[in-house]
Amino acid sequence: MNYPNKIKKEYHKNIIYANRGMDLENIINETNEYYLEKDIALIYKKPTPIGVVKVNYEKGQQIEKAYFATQSTLDYNGLYRGKYIEFDAKNTLSRTSFPLSNVHPHQIKHIRNVIRHHGIVFLIICMNDMFYLLNGPDFISFIDHNERKSIPYEYIKEYGYPLEYNYSKGLNYLTYVDLIGGFNNEEK
Amino acid sequence: MNYPNKIKKEYHKNIIYANRGMDLENIINETNEYYLEKDIALIYKKPTPIGVVKVNYEKGQQIEKAYFATQSTLDYNGLYRGKYIEFDAKNTLSRTSFPLSNVHPHQIKHIRNVIRHHGIVFLIICMNDMFYLLNGPDFISFIDHNERKSIPYEYIKEYGYPLEYNYSKGLNYLTYVDLIGGFNNEEK
Repeated sequence: MNYPNKIKKEYHKNIIYANRGMDLENIINETNEYYLEKDIALIYKKPTPIGVVKVNYEKGQQIEKAYFATQSTLDYNGLYRGKYIEFDAKNTLSRTSFPLSNVHPHQIKHIRNVIRHHGIVFLIICMNDMFYLLNGPDFISFIDHNERKSIPYEYIKEYGYPLEYNYSKGLNYLTYVDLIGGFNNEEK
Repeated sequence: MNYPNKIKKEYHKNIIYANRGMDLENIINETNEYYLEKDIALIYKKPTPIGVVKVNYEKGQQIEKAYFATQSTLDYNGLYRGKYIEFDAKNTLSRTSFPLSNVHPHQIKHIRNVIRHHGIVFLIICMNDMFYLLNGPDFISFIDHNERKSIPYEYIKEYGYPLEYNYSKGLNYLTYVDLIGGFNNEEK
């Protein structure tokens, strides 16, 4: 079939995008499993919230009608060295800036709350085939000091910590959490 | 209609039980909302995990077949004064002992994990029309030193902290978390 070039390109882009989204989630899940196995930290993905409309009790409580709802907090949270940790993983296809529309207003409010209550909160952003950990306060600082609807890649490169993917350890983002959490390594 | 006495009693019991289960969850949710509104703590109920089998994408991603799955962690977690908090709320109709079958083996393992990683973890047990906060280490200590399949009410009364229900503040369990978390009140 002959699709116009633009449609073909969009289609191709969407496939890559979907795979990437899945990949990032898988990579984070693998990393968290590694942490759990090695007894380094307890970090879990929260279940996707679902609004249940209809349940068939005669079929062992089978759900027959429901819909996906929006998480008002971030997707991952847990415990590392007594500290509360929460984060989300976000993908963007844009090469020049990270659209703030990727983060729901409820989630932005929640990030502010976690910071105020002395939790560790951050985003893991996958962009330009790189992974960056952007600390919550740096994310909020950008929003509070800019009118822009997206964060330029330059800002993410300057304030974010690049994360390397390793086959056995996954993204090992806790290395940077040690930095941003102000942990003294001698305490370990 | 004339039901035999036993069936009537069972039926009545189940109604009360179901209401109580709902009540306890509602009370905890109200308490957490109070904490959120007053900016005291950020504590949320995790969404119930659901295994999605069939999604209709033509109907805006409506879920047409799914089932309720078991939480391997506890139902509530969050952040209080920089600390990680996790707990579950459990009802029992028994007046003499709390059956350990109320807590899934995965959850018991998770409670041990949270303790080892210096998080605050506990159960809120509704029993004999009272609410008790049983600290994780006291719960695990019972399991490790007893062969019994239920915790006697005497143990819960001795080691648990009684929680009072207050119309505006709910159960206000954080008062006891201040004690078990070893917080110095001057830090507040």
